[in-house]
Amino acid sequence: MSTRAPLLLTPGPLTTSARTRQAMMMDWGSWDTGFNQLTASVCEQLLTIINGAASHHCVPLQGSGTFAVEAAIGTLVPRNGKVLVLINGAYGQRLAKICAVLGRSYSTFQTAEDQPTTADDVNRLLRDDPSFTHVALIHCETSTGILNPLPDIAQVVARHGKRLIIDAMSSFGALPIDASQVPFDALIAASGKCLEGVPGMGFVFAHKAALAQAEGNCHSLAMDLHDQHAYMAKTGQWRFTPPTHVVAALHEALLQYNEEGGLSARHARYADNCQALLDGMAALGLRSFLPAAIQAPIIVTFHAPRDARYRFKDFYERVKAKGFILYPGKLTQVETFRVGCIGCVDRSGMQAAVDAVAQVLREMEVLDI
Amino acid sequence: MSTRAPLLLTPGPLTTSARTRQAMMMDWGSWDTGFNQLTASVCEQLLTIINGAASHHCVPLQGSGTFAVEAAIGTLVPRNGKVLVLINGAYGQRLAKICAVLGRSYSTFQTAEDQPTTADDVNRLLRDDPSFTHVALIHCETSTGILNPLPDIAQVVARHGKRLIIDAMSSFGALPIDASQVPFDALIAASGKCLEGVPGMGFVFAHKAALAQAEGNCHSLAMDLHDQHAYMAKTGQWRFTPPTHVVAALHEALLQYNEEGGLSARHARYADNCQALLDGMAALGLRSFLPAAIQAPIIVTFHAPRDARYRFKDFYERVKAKGFILYPGKLTQVETFRVGCIGCVDRSGMQAAVDAVAQVLREMEVLDI
Ligand SMILES: Cc1ncc(COP(=O)(O)O)c(C=O)c1O
Ligand SMILES: Cc1ncc(COP(=O)(O)O)c(C=O)c1O
Repeated sequence: MSTRAPLLLTPGPLTTSARTRQAMMMDWGSWDTGFNQLTASVCEQLLTIINGAASHHCVPLQGSGTFAVEAAIGTLVPRNGKVLVLINGAYGQRLAKICAVLGRSYSTFQTAEDQPTTADDVNRLLRDDPSFTHVALIHCETSTGILNPLPDIAQVVARHGKRLIIDAMSSFGALPIDASQVPFDALIAASGKCLEGVPGMGFVFAHKAALAQAEGNCHSLAMDLHDQHAYMAKTGQWRFTPPTHVVAALHEALLQYNEEGGLSARHARYADNCQALLDGMAALGLRSFLPAAIQAPIIVTFHAPRDARYRFKDFYERVKAKGFILYPGKLTQVETFRVGCIGCVDRSGMQAAVDAVAQVLREMEVLDI
Repeated sequence: MSTRAPLLLTPGPLTTSARTRQAMMMDWGSWDTGFNQLTASVCEQLLTIINGAASHHCVPLQGSGTFAVEAAIGTLVPRNGKVLVLINGAYGQRLAKICAVLGRSYSTFQTAEDQPTTADDVNRLLRDDPSFTHVALIHCETSTGILNPLPDIAQVVARHGKRLIIDAMSSFGALPIDASQVPFDALIAASGKCLEGVPGMGFVFAHKAALAQAEGNCHSLAMDLHDQHAYMAKTGQWRFTPPTHVVAALHEALLQYNEEGGLSARHARYADNCQALLDGMAALGLRSFLPAAIQAPIIVTFHAPRDARYRFKDFYERVKAKGFILYPGKLTQVETFRVGCIGCVDRSGMQAAVDAVAQVLREMEVLDI
């Protein structure tokens, strides 16, 4: 069954290894010590990836990545805090939406979708409005694949004495982030992205001192990371029923992550995937939306062919029939589609996907690319 | 691997069938029509179980059951609403906690843990305080296993013109609830209980008119059931990344549910499990906490043996070594333990568990039971 399944070239859910999925063939009791050990091991391995065991707690949370982002903002931004939200795509917009719904004061700073926020921008904004308590940004803005200069921005935020919240959903595990070098209060990611687990849980690396002060901040019972952490520290258990099979799969995915060689190996494979994709598509005349310097090796946005015979839905279905699932574009102004470089796939898989795209464009008689 | 795993006699996560777990061996794209069809089929099958297709929407939600309960209260109780919370155990307490955290006005009505709330109680409470807009209750209070008289209470609530929110987490799918007979605004359950899926998502049956009026009520972005439903109705997709493998497992579990004979067959098997358990434990001298008339066939609370040689932790580990995972008690006044009757298990499994308990009590030299 799984061998015939298409390869998912998306920002997640993505293709996982058979070994990772196999870990879901066992039912775990959520109260049992065996399962508690799985959870503890997952958190420990995750902290190691960011070199954060001394400074941060890893707080896992049920639900999708957005739940963890909302939980981080709700728990760590006090009700009288004010957030500077840096935006260059849909996930940045979502940060602002979360602040609005949660009733946290915020201002947005928006750049074009092919324009990273700079440390200078942030410096100026924090200088001009000292009332900000927090800055929130997207590390890799998955709606285009653009990389924002996190280390530089983090330094500026720290220099102003403000707290940083990082949505690293699509970059964590593949792009290096060292908690001893990059100061932050919260960094958020999820099981089903670059760690190549299955979707169903997120996690927040929360600065220990900040989390300790966060009692009673949260707008939600289920999303209260302070309480989630306190309960887990006391009992070894999740506060509410954990997605046991998802946790088991993530545990197995992390073992493979380390066997592969950890972050540097994961990064190298994805960078290689991305280069194979960019080269192959360029040879077909397909232009990527972002310049190479700001393209993260996570997901690539391509301009749709100009040809009137191109229709995304038709293109998508034909490429899928050849074994590859692509992803729609998320830009409002320009017609695009996206191809992910992440998941259990290597250069040969990317090249096969490019071949499929080439064949489909021929079948569709799309000439003007 | 899975054949050697212990049988989970807990309120969930519980033992699933190999076929259900096998459905997680495939990776699904969350944007793909194939996956959208899975979601639609799950919702349709769920609505059929409560005969609710005409009156209610099924809104699935990422996360554990508590997330769905919080989402239902946050979405369906307007900010100026007032909730009467009926409590006879820990999950009722949690409903009140949710109201408190969300800033919804509420009052509680609490009975003893072996005492169902009655329709007369509710009638009196609603008569005495007309400011209530909603009533919230637990159908089967899993902390003991007690069944509250839902149909009678629902009639009283409707007669007063108030709205009802039902946490049916541990009863849905096994105890009959007919939406055309039992009026409610929300009924909440989850994937990993009597449907025998794996944990990782909940769902809310929300009354269509109530949900349509709920725009903007919710305290949370991720938990907004109005927006979740509106997006799904428009696109066929979940608003944020779904737990694809959990959804696929639930879909497969529902097919088996229907093949087994639907709710009446599921109820009959669990009732038989419960009887086998009660009979077997009674023969060992172990007394159940609840009288039979109010015992739901979901989970049974037993008094711990009086013998000083009994220690729950030791007892638990020894029974586990024989292949059965039990559950700790959740009562504060009396020492108890719990045994679940739900999951992919039948009478012979329950009898084997009783035999294991008998052996363990002998091993531990627990005589005074
Ligand atoms: C940068 C970023 N933030 C947030 C999310 C939201 O995660 P989810 O869809 O799991 O809620 C995503 C998902 O791709 C993402 O890429
Ligand atoms: C009646 C009831 N309500 C709520 C819950 C909470 O569900 P979860 O642990 O999935 O958050 C449970 C869990 O067993 C339950 O039995």
